[in-house]
Amino acid sequence: MDKKKLEALRKKYSNKQYHDVDDPEHKKAMLNADDMASGLATLLDAPFQESLKGLDIALIGIPFDSGVFHRTGARFGPRAIRDMSMSVGPFNHQTRISPFNLCNVADVGDVAPLHGFSLEEGIKTIEEYYHKVIDAGVVPVSAGGDHSVTYPIMKAVGREQAIGMIHIDAHCDTMGAAEDHKFHHGGPFRNAVLAGVLDPERCVQIGIRGSAEVFWEFSYESGMTVIPVQDFHEMGVKEVIAKTREVLGDGPTYITFDVDGLDPVYAPGTGTPEVGGLSTADAIQLLRGLRGLNFVGGDLVEVAPAYDATSNTAQVGKQMMFEILCLVAESKANN
Amino acid sequence: MDKKKLEALRKKYSNKQYHDVDDPEHKKAMLNADDMASGLATLLDAPFQESLKGLDIALIGIPFDSGVFHRTGARFGPRAIRDMSMSVGPFNHQTRISPFNLCNVADVGDVAPLHGFSLEEGIKTIEEYYHKVIDAGVVPVSAGGDHSVTYPIMKAVGREQAIGMIHIDAHCDTMGAAEDHKFHHGGPFRNAVLAGVLDPERCVQIGIRGSAEVFWEFSYESGMTVIPVQDFHEMGVKEVIAKTREVLGDGPTYITFDVDGLDPVYAPGTGTPEVGGLSTADAIQLLRGLRGLNFVGGDLVEVAPAYDATSNTAQVGKQMMFEILCLVAESKANN
Amino acid sequence: MDKKKLEALRKKYSNKQYHDVDDPEHKKAMLNADDMASGLATLLDAPFQESLKGLDIALIGIPFDSGVFHRTGARFGPRAIRDMSMSVGPFNHQTRISPFNLCNVADVGDVAPLHGFSLEEGIKTIEEYYHKVIDAGVVPVSAGGDHSVTYPIMKAVGREQAIGMIHIDAHCDTMGAAEDHKFHHGGPFRNAVLAGVLDPERCVQIGIRGSAEVFWEFSYESGMTVIPVQDFHEMGVKEVIAKTREVLGDGPTYITFDVDGLDPVYAPGTGTPEVGGLSTADAIQLLRGLRGLNFVGGDLVEVAPAYDATSNTAQVGKQMMFEILCLVAESKANN
Amino acid sequence: MDKKKLEALRKKYSNKQYHDVDDPEHKKAMLNADDMASGLATLLDAPFQESLKGLDIALIGIPFDSGVFHRTGARFGPRAIRDMSMSVGPFNHQTRISPFNLCNVADVGDVAPLHGFSLEEGIKTIEEYYHKVIDAGVVPVSAGGDHSVTYPIMKAVGREQAIGMIHIDAHCDTMGAAEDHKFHHGGPFRNAVLAGVLDPERCVQIGIRGSAEVFWEFSYESGMTVIPVQDFHEMGVKEVIAKTREVLGDGPTYITFDVDGLDPVYAPGTGTPEVGGLSTADAIQLLRGLRGLNFVGGDLVEVAPAYDATSNTAQVGKQMMFEILCLVAESKANN
Amino acid sequence: MDKKKLEALRKKYSNKQYHDVDDPEHKKAMLNADDMASGLATLLDAPFQESLKGLDIALIGIPFDSGVFHRTGARFGPRAIRDMSMSVGPFNHQTRISPFNLCNVADVGDVAPLHGFSLEEGIKTIEEYYHKVIDAGVVPVSAGGDHSVTYPIMKAVGREQAIGMIHIDAHCDTMGAAEDHKFHHGGPFRNAVLAGVLDPERCVQIGIRGSAEVFWEFSYESGMTVIPVQDFHEMGVKEVIAKTREVLGDGPTYITFDVDGLDPVYAPGTGTPEVGGLSTADAIQLLRGLRGLNFVGGDLVEVAPAYDATSNTAQVGKQMMFEILCLVAESKANN
Amino acid sequence: MDKKKLEALRKKYSNKQYHDVDDPEHKKAMLNADDMASGLATLLDAPFQESLKGLDIALIGIPFDSGVFHRTGARFGPRAIRDMSMSVGPFNHQTRISPFNLCNVADVGDVAPLHGFSLEEGIKTIEEYYHKVIDAGVVPVSAGGDHSVTYPIMKAVGREQAIGMIHIDAHCDTMGAAEDHKFHHGGPFRNAVLAGVLDPERCVQIGIRGSAEVFWEFSYESGMTVIPVQDFHEMGVKEVIAKTREVLGDGPTYITFDVDGLDPVYAPGTGTPEVGGLSTADAIQLLRGLRGLNFVGGDLVEVAPAYDATSNTAQVGKQMMFEILCLVAESKANN
Repeated sequence: MDKKKLEALRKKYSNKQYHDVDDPEHKKAMLNADDMASGLATLLDAPFQESLKGLDIALIGIPFDSGVFHRTGARFGPRAIRDMSMSVGPFNHQTRISPFNLCNVADVGDVAPLHGFSLEEGIKTIEEYYHKVIDAGVVPVSAGGDHSVTYPIMKAVGREQAIGMIHIDAHCDTMGAAEDHKFHHGGPFRNAVLAGVLDPERCVQIGIRGSAEVFWEFSYESGMTVIPVQDFHEMGVKEVIAKTREVLGDGPTYITFDVDGLDPVYAPGTGTPEVGGLSTADAIQLLRGLRGLNFVGGDLVEVAPAYDATSNTAQVGKQMMFEILCLVAESKANN
Repeated sequence: MDKKKLEALRKKYSNKQYHDVDDPEHKKAMLNADDMASGLATLLDAPFQESLKGLDIALIGIPFDSGVFHRTGARFGPRAIRDMSMSVGPFNHQTRISPFNLCNVADVGDVAPLHGFSLEEGIKTIEEYYHKVIDAGVVPVSAGGDHSVTYPIMKAVGREQAIGMIHIDAHCDTMGAAEDHKFHHGGPFRNAVLAGVLDPERCVQIGIRGSAEVFWEFSYESGMTVIPVQDFHEMGVKEVIAKTREVLGDGPTYITFDVDGLDPVYAPGTGTPEVGGLSTADAIQLLRGLRGLNFVGGDLVEVAPAYDATSNTAQVGKQMMFEILCLVAESKANN
Repeated sequence: MDKKKLEALRKKYSNKQYHDVDDPEHKKAMLNADDMASGLATLLDAPFQESLKGLDIALIGIPFDSGVFHRTGARFGPRAIRDMSMSVGPFNHQTRISPFNLCNVADVGDVAPLHGFSLEEGIKTIEEYYHKVIDAGVVPVSAGGDHSVTYPIMKAVGREQAIGMIHIDAHCDTMGAAEDHKFHHGGPFRNAVLAGVLDPERCVQIGIRGSAEVFWEFSYESGMTVIPVQDFHEMGVKEVIAKTREVLGDGPTYITFDVDGLDPVYAPGTGTPEVGGLSTADAIQLLRGLRGLNFVGGDLVEVAPAYDATSNTAQVGKQMMFEILCLVAESKANN
Repeated sequence: MDKKKLEALRKKYSNKQYHDVDDPEHKKAMLNADDMASGLATLLDAPFQESLKGLDIALIGIPFDSGVFHRTGARFGPRAIRDMSMSVGPFNHQTRISPFNLCNVADVGDVAPLHGFSLEEGIKTIEEYYHKVIDAGVVPVSAGGDHSVTYPIMKAVGREQAIGMIHIDAHCDTMGAAEDHKFHHGGPFRNAVLAGVLDPERCVQIGIRGSAEVFWEFSYESGMTVIPVQDFHEMGVKEVIAKTREVLGDGPTYITFDVDGLDPVYAPGTGTPEVGGLSTADAIQLLRGLRGLNFVGGDLVEVAPAYDATSNTAQVGKQMMFEILCLVAESKANN
Repeated sequence: MDKKKLEALRKKYSNKQYHDVDDPEHKKAMLNADDMASGLATLLDAPFQESLKGLDIALIGIPFDSGVFHRTGARFGPRAIRDMSMSVGPFNHQTRISPFNLCNVADVGDVAPLHGFSLEEGIKTIEEYYHKVIDAGVVPVSAGGDHSVTYPIMKAVGREQAIGMIHIDAHCDTMGAAEDHKFHHGGPFRNAVLAGVLDPERCVQIGIRGSAEVFWEFSYESGMTVIPVQDFHEMGVKEVIAKTREVLGDGPTYITFDVDGLDPVYAPGTGTPEVGGLSTADAIQLLRGLRGLNFVGGDLVEVAPAYDATSNTAQVGKQMMFEILCLVAESKANN
Repeated sequence: MDKKKLEALRKKYSNKQYHDVDDPEHKKAMLNADDMASGLATLLDAPFQESLKGLDIALIGIPFDSGVFHRTGARFGPRAIRDMSMSVGPFNHQTRISPFNLCNVADVGDVAPLHGFSLEEGIKTIEEYYHKVIDAGVVPVSAGGDHSVTYPIMKAVGREQAIGMIHIDAHCDTMGAAEDHKFHHGGPFRNAVLAGVLDPERCVQIGIRGSAEVFWEFSYESGMTVIPVQDFHEMGVKEVIAKTREVLGDGPTYITFDVDGLDPVYAPGTGTPEVGGLSTADAIQLLRGLRGLNFVGGDLVEVAPAYDATSNTAQVGKQMMFEILCLVAESKANN
């Protein structure tokens, strides 16, 4: 490098503090960042406020896991994501979205009181909570909890108009009742369709695999678009994005991300891991390719920290939830 | 050592295989031992048989944890204890009891089908199962599951005559209903007394501590003998044994051991750890001091392997369950 | 979705239980599934039977790890795979193979007695066991143990006719004797070729990498087809499948999968991890591309649970063993 | 039990909810408890308020660990204690103290901004913060951070009058400067004495052991009372309490608890573990024996969650911090 | 295989020991290998010598982590890499480089004395150490430590002529001062450019992602070539190699590898993990594609073993450090 | 404190560095300490020298675990103890022994070459190594390895005169042959007695418990003094010390410490944990009570780091080995 240029750099940069940057968008984004070891842990490091007042988007925890067949523990998912939110955002390096610059966003705490003694009561409590969120005109971005929580969310979000869905998961979650209990985490989307709040023809299910295939007849028969993981790899991310955008169109769209859609190496801390899933790089490129759709909410579910020895699942959970927030915030800001 | 004695030892021992021992009781005990790395995992390394036929004692797993307030996971307790049973027994080094020599004992599998969607339904399924065990004249020694499982066991075991109880735990578990659900793991002994199957005046609760004291009025009012952990240390094991024997007398006695009665360093893998509990050495001496009581069953509950990074909890669980089996087997053999 | 269609769905699905599915193949497959938290742990959740009678395929554990140079622990591999078999199969979502519908399959327990005091004695015990399996006309699918166990298996499986081999591994395992011990886990395939039971010209070794290259001269000189991991990535899965099918043709074929063929992120719990291996998605597509070959047995080796903090290795082990079972079962059913 | 008594119990208890207890003190204590899986994580489950206004006692986090020689990580101690505070208090089962009933207590967040680039700057930031706390008339109970944080706390707490100290630790922490840095975690009490804020003649150091003895000449020469761990065991808890009360008298007293005073099995997650320390049962009895002294503050330091695989250290940390809060709250309420 | 060939193989191989191989390069490489469980742990299993005399390349540990914002622990990186070096090299299976055959290489121990009380003093101590290494004509290959250590290394390595850099990382590390401290781990390359020892126009930064984008204006303005991770995937490894070779040309080149450049599943044990990074297979192919450049040193930084439950990070760290050693050794041998 | 005294302290201490202490013994001890994060890892932080020349005491690693029945892994015990030796000694706080001041002590590396393919060959290799140590007049203090290693050590140490033994363990280790293999880790002391190198009448076995009692007839018949763990607790440490001193007298005495003598909470990382053992505080007081006996060697065995999630076992192992070194060094210095 020639000396003159070096001198110019020295002059400009020798005494600059890290927050003293030229790009005004960068500067503004940094206002939302803070010290990584200190302070209360909140979802995506958002400010905490108990009331929904004045919010565009509410980040909500749902500490509930009474819908699982196998390994419980997702009730501690919101806590795990809060803890890992020490270092996330507030700026999206590729899309350049800074959600806190676009919308009023807060962590409003957890759905409560929620006990685990009855699946049906829990589902009811959650639904009642989300009706209040929708009443307030606030868009919900939620952290589960097991996947059973998405059905009562959809009951509220889709109450005026059946919504479409982008669904990343190892399982279709359109299974029937088990011992007459229908609200378990294997069936929320059958329930939502039958309740009239989810339009199966505007649903894409991505990453499907594992032995549960025997349970997914409802997905096919109702007209959902199922993209098993081997097709995902065959098609490539770009084609999957194109297909997804085509199915969803510009109608209201909800995005639900079960961390078990990822391969268990990225997300071991979950109830029903299935070998052979998406990589986080795939998932990030997929999510970033969905900008511009009409998002009315989203969630990230099934983080079970008791099985997360490396904390990778919580790391991944907070990152995917941040990507979802970026999509929803941009959508909200533009509508 | 003089040469002659050495020569005698050499003559006798130089070519002896490990199973070739003089003591006939030792020899017999060894017949029940096998290779530690191979074979199916069963409770206390007992033989497996699905039917109750011909058994004196049935070892039963109860994979159920819908009764907890806090950290779930005890549904995998039976599996964890089976896995650790590679090296346990079959001989009790201090009491010289070899339960498999005294009684016909088998692992009869798990209570099933058990789902986690409704606390009440689970409790009912368990109760029905244990009525069959009692019908068959078999004494149950069980591995939980959370502590809610002991109430339905007692419904069967105490159906003819209210039983007494030796209860090792950090908590009295005599709490009232939560949101109208009474069968949670904080209340089985209130329920059992009110159901007439447990005689509170023949109940000893040992190791009690922690902040839940505010919930235990029923223990005191109904006449249970409560020995908080500080009193346990003050009295010493021998006095606690004496007190316990005095309270129980020779009536039918059930023993229920919640691993959280132990200090969390011995049993971190549990739902509601409370700092400052019994040591395993204390607990073993306590149990071995209870020989000769009239035992009609027992259980070991609240092993939650997802929180058991060192596997110490499962190690301790299988050892305590073995000590309980020794007590019950000797009692059964003598009656 | 139009209302009529919704009504039709509601009519059909509103009260359907999960096991009530239309596809008869699905229905049949489900009969082999059971509750995920309860019951004894068996290999691939197969029924347990000690005798070989009436079986088409025996699932066999080999708790042996005296052949390793470095980190021991694979003697507990069979136990780890049994434990993780709570949720595997019984249906293969992509190939639609349901092995328990095609063949009589059982977990027949472990090769025993096996101690670890002498590599040579262990190898002999294993060989004797497998001769009995072959005598009974049963096809073995085994869970190791370290890779030294494959040599004595091949001694039995290839006793009538030298077999071909599909071998997924980080290492060629064709190394010479160490301090005059030849049966260690670095040399089974040199031994098998020299014993006349393995035809090197019908051998493919896939995923090879790491520093041990200096030891593999025998692979090259004997005519094995070696596909190092960088070539695997360069060629892509489809070309590797084609090459493998070409080398193996329709002769008798054995498949042996060392979990260290996978990258250590997928399989950290193994004795000799080598950075930079196959992904599980790659491996699954590879295995599923091998349908129709003439399989006479298979194994999954080198799961060492003591190094498997996340349990991912056991998860992957059970899945790959299931994929191998699917291949073998279909082959057995068609022959 | 006679039938009448049973009927009376049934009448009173059959429909009682868990919070419906007779003892008014119990009832009041429960108001401060909440659901264990939900909500933001705060120190000892206290309410969060950023300002010091109206408080009697402030719970303060100090995420700082630049004073250590060996294993860092105590900067995440406050977060770990917050997380484990899901289940602690609000009632002390033995002393029957309910600190939230006695005083206004809140988690006021963390000392900030604190970076780790300079030990000296960190110490200065902490001292400035605590002067504001003392200015506000608020008593601080803090969660470290490494032990270097206690010196700047004492600079504020002892600014009017030199204080006495009860110090539980494996190390005396009265070491000299290292490469001219004096504020490291091995020397806070030498510094505090020399600064005139700590009276060595009113200091008791309990649990001392390990090889660092070579560094403690200042403790002895300045007149501190040192009780090495072997003397602790020899004397017994009661005599240690008596000695401590004698040394401290009724002057202002600060209590500082380094978790490494406990044996590493109780507290593996710390920077400088020393084998052979206090048990938690010992420590709890010690603390509960100190009621009635004149406490002007306290802290719990050196929880380093990165080394806390079982989470036992955080469990113990929150319990000991709660015990300290009980002592301080009772003292504050009585003065 | 025909019998004759089999006989020939038998004749040659039946009694060959593993070290008795034909290829003389292989034989020589093996001289540097030893028993995997025994002996002192050294960097890349190199011989240990305290003096720099006679060396071509020194392997150096830098136990320093006072430059981090978030999770400390990289001070134990050198120890973790030494421990994992039981099984690494000495032969590179793909490139066939055997660095110990090409150069005199030794582990010379750690930069000492290094304390963590002052970032600035640590940086100075490191710089002084490396000036001595350069004075001795020895090429340094180092194991960090956090990334702040690379700036003082460059001060020595680039003291005669500004060097170019290949930089694999999630972060550009060209951030400004924080509270007036400039030497933290977020800014070494800004510092090095401004100090005139690093030529930004010969710098390539690969794998960049995460939210810190807001801090990297200096990279762009100074003329560094930044390849964010999404571009890396889009371009493919081969194009990235070509671009890198083009930027670096034949000038003196330093290679610095922050393990957080890899995805956290490969390297969870690091201070600032960022979801969505390179795979180890990608990284190995990238490094092996850089042969022939003019390497004057290299380092591998940010291994923090306290966060490395599976030890994968240390495994990966030692492998990447070995790949760097191969590049540097070949370059040194050819110049 | 009065002002004058404070001024005196200030004058003396304000600028003193940590190594500047008055006590000359302390000062000398510190010369052997060094920086805790840097440098090669050696046993007890001793200097490393490969030759035995000039040494009084050699610290020796024995990476061998082919003698175990159950969980292998003790071959990595020496490495684990080296790693934890960052912070141990060099001064014994209670006994004031500083072994490096009393004797020439070095880590001389590991017994090699040792492979695991044959128990008998390993035993022979170890015995040959120790004959050389004894030939050189050096006293061995060793780190196992499983307990089978003590027999070949004794073959050398006791070759001139049968020795006495202090043995801390959960098991007597006097079992017979297993499938004709006698040198396994359950039988070293039967072997040593029969070989005439160990005098059973001068043997004390402390901490015995667990189900293996059935195997210990040889201990009783040969005249060893067995102190089961319940007797240990009943007698108290002081009486156990007195009994031990009485049995050993002033003859040559070897001390062997199996970490499984401790309770598994202190030492989970071992092959055959037995619930209910000694605490580390007990063990330290026991060892320190044995000063003045005539020690001719010692060992610490059965640390298996793969089962040591918290690293407590390695922590404890290094501390107990240091205590043994103190005993041996004082004994050597006085003879």
